[in-house]
Amino acid sequence: MTIGSAATSSPVPADPVVASATRASDPGSPPEPLRWLADTGAEWTTDQQILGRSRLDRSGWEPDGRPAAVVFPRTVTQVQAVLRGASATRTPLVPRGAGTALTGASTAGAGTVVIDLSRMNRIVEIRAADGIAIAEPGVVTADLDRAAAEHGLSYAPDPASVEISTIGGNIATNAGGLRCAKYGVTRDSVLGLDVVLADGTLINTGRATLKSVTGYDLTGLFVGSEGTLGVVVGATLRLRTLPTPTATIAAAYPDIATAAAASVALTGAHVQPVLAELLDEATLSALADHGLRQSGGALLIVQLDGGPVETSRALEVLRRGATSVRSDGDPAELLAARRQALPAIERLGRPLIEDIAVPRSRLAAAVRSIADIAQRHDVPICTLAHAGDGNLHPIIVAGSHGSPIPSAAHRAADDIFALALSLGGTVTGEHGVGVLKRAWLARELGEEQHHLQRRIKAVFDPLGILNPGKAI
Amino acid sequence: MTIGSAATSSPVPADPVVASATRASDPGSPPEPLRWLADTGAEWTTDQQILGRSRLDRSGWEPDGRPAAVVFPRTVTQVQAVLRGASATRTPLVPRGAGTALTGASTAGAGTVVIDLSRMNRIVEIRAADGIAIAEPGVVTADLDRAAAEHGLSYAPDPASVEISTIGGNIATNAGGLRCAKYGVTRDSVLGLDVVLADGTLINTGRATLKSVTGYDLTGLFVGSEGTLGVVVGATLRLRTLPTPTATIAAAYPDIATAAAASVALTGAHVQPVLAELLDEATLSALADHGLRQSGGALLIVQLDGGPVETSRALEVLRRGATSVRSDGDPAELLAARRQALPAIERLGRPLIEDIAVPRSRLAAAVRSIADIAQRHDVPICTLAHAGDGNLHPIIVAGSHGSPIPSAAHRAADDIFALALSLGGTVTGEHGVGVLKRAWLARELGEEQHHLQRRIKAVFDPLGILNPGKAI
Repeated sequence: MTIGSAATSSPVPADPVVASATRASDPGSPPEPLRWLADTGAEWTTDQQILGRSRLDRSGWEPDGRPAAVVFPRTVTQVQAVLRGASATRTPLVPRGAGTALTGASTAGAGTVVIDLSRMNRIVEIRAADGIAIAEPGVVTADLDRAAAEHGLSYAPDPASVEISTIGGNIATNAGGLRCAKYGVTRDSVLGLDVVLADGTLINTGRATLKSVTGYDLTGLFVGSEGTLGVVVGATLRLRTLPTPTATIAAAYPDIATAAAASVALTGAHVQPVLAELLDEATLSALADHGLRQSGGALLIVQLDGGPVETSRALEVLRRGATSVRSDGDPAELLAARRQALPAIERLGRPLIEDIAVPRSRLAAAVRSIADIAQRHDVPICTLAHAGDGNLHPIIVAGSHGSPIPSAAHRAADDIFALALSLGGTVTGEHGVGVLKRAWLARELGEEQHHLQRRIKAVFDPLGILNPGKAI
Repeated sequence: MTIGSAATSSPVPADPVVASATRASDPGSPPEPLRWLADTGAEWTTDQQILGRSRLDRSGWEPDGRPAAVVFPRTVTQVQAVLRGASATRTPLVPRGAGTALTGASTAGAGTVVIDLSRMNRIVEIRAADGIAIAEPGVVTADLDRAAAEHGLSYAPDPASVEISTIGGNIATNAGGLRCAKYGVTRDSVLGLDVVLADGTLINTGRATLKSVTGYDLTGLFVGSEGTLGVVVGATLRLRTLPTPTATIAAAYPDIATAAAASVALTGAHVQPVLAELLDEATLSALADHGLRQSGGALLIVQLDGGPVETSRALEVLRRGATSVRSDGDPAELLAARRQALPAIERLGRPLIEDIAVPRSRLAAAVRSIADIAQRHDVPICTLAHAGDGNLHPIIVAGSHGSPIPSAAHRAADDIFALALSLGGTVTGEHGVGVLKRAWLARELGEEQHHLQRRIKAVFDPLGILNPGKAI
């Protein structure tokens, strides 16, 4: 076990990620092939327990072996030194935030070094009058939103993982969430980025203005690139004045197809929900002990901020075919129950969380076909959907935790991806490609575009050291 | 004079752009170096009057010479053939929509061929339930918004040129407009693009879903790239349910700095205007005969759609320091007057329309400094601003129409760009770089990022035939 910062010899603080490691008064030297780590000024470790944790994310994907080391930079200069050292030694680097990726994007196998950015976690500045925040990548997303709230502002993207995932990870996957139906995904809130390139060069893309069109939009290119083009070390983020929600409606339906059709009908009625969350019968059953007791085959939770006219239009639409429609529930309780859905499903077994998006009008067709897929492969699938933007999360319950994933589950997942493409959709709405969907990337993009994307990758990362084997 | 389509021999319709040309029953052959045009299936012309018009845009920039020909494809296949022919012969191509660029991006000098996309002007489909439209690049932006309105939807981007500029041109410059303060710029409404690459390959970026993160965001990379990466031949656009405006407020102030400060104070009061347009004294004076008679040194027009609470908050803020605040005017009349500002200023002389953006809190500082610049160089400058997003249009009245631009006007423009950067802003908020701001591009991006951008350009356009000398 070696933990150290050869440059500073500073003791490692009691950070959760190294909680199991003892503090090293004498950090020692890294093993020979990693000698360059000692010159980065950053803390690093080869502790086997930490390596074991840092090789995994929340996807269930198991890489071959363990990373050789984890390095914990605290400054941009240290990140630059890590990238220079990795380039000089051709060492594959895996950038990591909170490790909440659902696709294997944060997994790290043999021969890699993990660059863990969770200690770069300062909210540098909130400029309320400008409507912007400047944050380091390790800031937990919900913390930023809470800091913005002190100024009457919001950070709009709110993935279900908002309390545990980081801004850097959200940028890597272009995370969405619940209220992005109205207020946009992560890309819509990122104005500029500080990025360290593979050779250690620091660039600042975008700017602190709400508009700009000077040069190509590299900011947008980095968002969603899953750590394969550079390491994000700072972000200039848009904060918004979000209206206070005026209504939160829970509408129950006999089946999920009717519920899906109701959510689609909202658009035609000139209603723009802040969020529209759809839960199927299997999910409701899993949630029964978590504050959301709901009879019926499907539940649609709709939140609005548009005033009484929009609310009455929405109620009229939602009542069609519903078994019950309530707008007097506690909004916080309803949404908390929705956020409990994944933990509740996890109690049923090992979840494979899929993430397809289809044109909104195909939502009902998609949920019907997913039910067919579950039946065909005889695997339980709980379906949640951000119905407002046609983004479905079919969650395959793939046997018990720790046991091998049954092949039927993999076949069901493949059928779900094929379904998304056949409906004119995408194999990932907000989780990214990672390892798990690489085979589907080329099918969705087409050979010509895939080739172009690989050439862009080569411009940024000619040595192929940035998160190799992921995404592209 | 030659107009023709050698492949089809079809007569040229009475399109405005070729109105001065006679219909050619025998189109003949293109001159030798352009023999390839005959194989594209597209109509083309070497009529000197049309070439003379197609060499210019609305920037005032005069390229050396005239283009050799203008080609008018009507289909994707014809665009592909044009690109293949241009690649094979190393012919520089200038993509052109309505020619409303304000930066020289659409100007075409000697040795170029203009690819005029104004005849690819079909709204292919509006899928109301999906909230998307599919349009060809030559569709006039306001026409798309009107078509969406028939379904109760809106196309949000509304540049001042909305009645004359095209979707393709808006995509090329990432056009903004008035209501983008709340509903986003063009990039926020583009979900996917059909693009013909330099070698004639057709790719389809993005998709018809509201979310996706499969691969790098090439859609966002093409938006704002000013025709230097590929030729956009189709767009999948997001349509939104926009609330009906609930208040339109005209607030007059003794001076523009006080007005700018009032607009900035809205954010702190939890107000998110749909639009906040700022007009200085010189602009108001130019507008006096156009339905906007207004005493005082500055006018702020604010439109809201958030309901009575937001309106009363806004009124309270806007009354501070105001000489008058009215919310009973005709909204359509107020906004029409705002859109008349540029034509009104054009009556004073030749306008150089600048386009900087600054962090919103620096708006007052920016307008004060622009007044100093006008005085220092002794040139009239009318300042308009999309105050909601810190985007200023200082319009330099540069002598009379047709006369050479005085050097003082160029010096004033340079000072305005330097001002934008010194305030942490950008040299272009929504018009693009074109020819006029190329020298400033590298200063804003920095050498490292500029180098990276040129390498991306080389991936897409290795022969350098796409709008050379523009933007990057």
